[in-house]
Amino acid sequence: MSEVDRSAVADLLGVLAYAELTAFDRLAEDARLAPTLAGRAALARMAAAEIGHHVRLTDRLTELGVEPAGAMAPFVSALDAFHEGTRPSTWLEGLVKAYVGDGLATDFYREIAAFLDSDTRAIIVDSLSDAGQSEFVIDRVRRAIAREPRVGGRLALWGRRLMGEERTIDVTEWP
Amino acid sequence: MSEVDRSAVADLLGVLAYAELTAFDRLAEDARLAPTLAGRAALARMAAAEIGHHVRLTDRLTELGVEPAGAMAPFVSALDAFHEGTRPSTWLEGLVKAYVGDGLATDFYREIAAFLDSDTRAIIVDSLSDAGQSEFVIDRVRRAIAREPRVGGRLALWGRRLMGEERTIDVTEWP
Repeated sequence: MSEVDRSAVADLLGVLAYAELTAFDRLAEDARLAPTLAGRAALARMAAAEIGHHVRLTDRLTELGVEPAGAMAPFVSALDAFHEGTRPSTWLEGLVKAYVGDGLATDFYREIAAFLDSDTRAIIVDSLSDAGQSEFVIDRVRRAIAREPRVGGRLALWGRRLMGEERTIDVTEWP
Repeated sequence: MSEVDRSAVADLLGVLAYAELTAFDRLAEDARLAPTLAGRAALARMAAAEIGHHVRLTDRLTELGVEPAGAMAPFVSALDAFHEGTRPSTWLEGLVKAYVGDGLATDFYREIAAFLDSDTRAIIVDSLSDAGQSEFVIDRVRRAIAREPRVGGRLALWGRRLMGEERTIDVTEWP
């Protein structure tokens, strides 16, 4: 791997590793909004799975001779600002954010990963694998809408807002 | 296993499973107090490890035909009250709480586990295994005291308070 390539790969692994750490935080916080103990445990398990991904990404950084905290640091403020600006106020908003946020990020990173060496690509694609969110979220959101149809409209607006915010994450200061 | 035994085992697995879930919550919250990205990631990993234990305990409940949320429910208010009453106000207090709290709980549950069937005992003893806390906590607390000796006195008082609170967790309403 050339020095330029290594630096680009370190950036990509760094942003993904920090994204997983913030996903953990977000899911751990949302777990506390859960209306049931079973829902709380389900979100806590998803949060733990994100840390599993985070560990694989930081292990790969270490293998490449890059210090993980240093690789993550450039992305902290932009990702934190996104999460601060889109803090869910209900359990259902939290679920939709997990779904929309991860979906968009997954599509984006999967496209980029196609250009990488095969070892790094495998780790990235694996770290993007669904931690069981989709099925759980779809089930809970559908049930909530069935019980109370106008919840659907409110969550659709929330989903669109998330899409907009995520597309404008400020990357101008990224390396 | 007799019906009485099964019920006692379900209670023990239930309280431990909920304790692991609250340990996850606490470590996830404390992770956000971390002064460095590396410290934050280290605590998030520990939180994820607690969920690994939680999953093993709830899987065992399911094997025994007991619904996990139902087995955890009787212990929610007492354990939540303990955590509410001993919320750390600094990163170091959080580390000491993880250390003292887990240490006491581990000793207690290990003693009880000696009376259980060997399958359940193995799962419980495994769920009590150190998720890397001790080494990390001791290192960070020692370094902090070396930098600023009077931190040691404050943390010692905090540790004693935790011991007192933990010994008086209200178990009178437990099944």
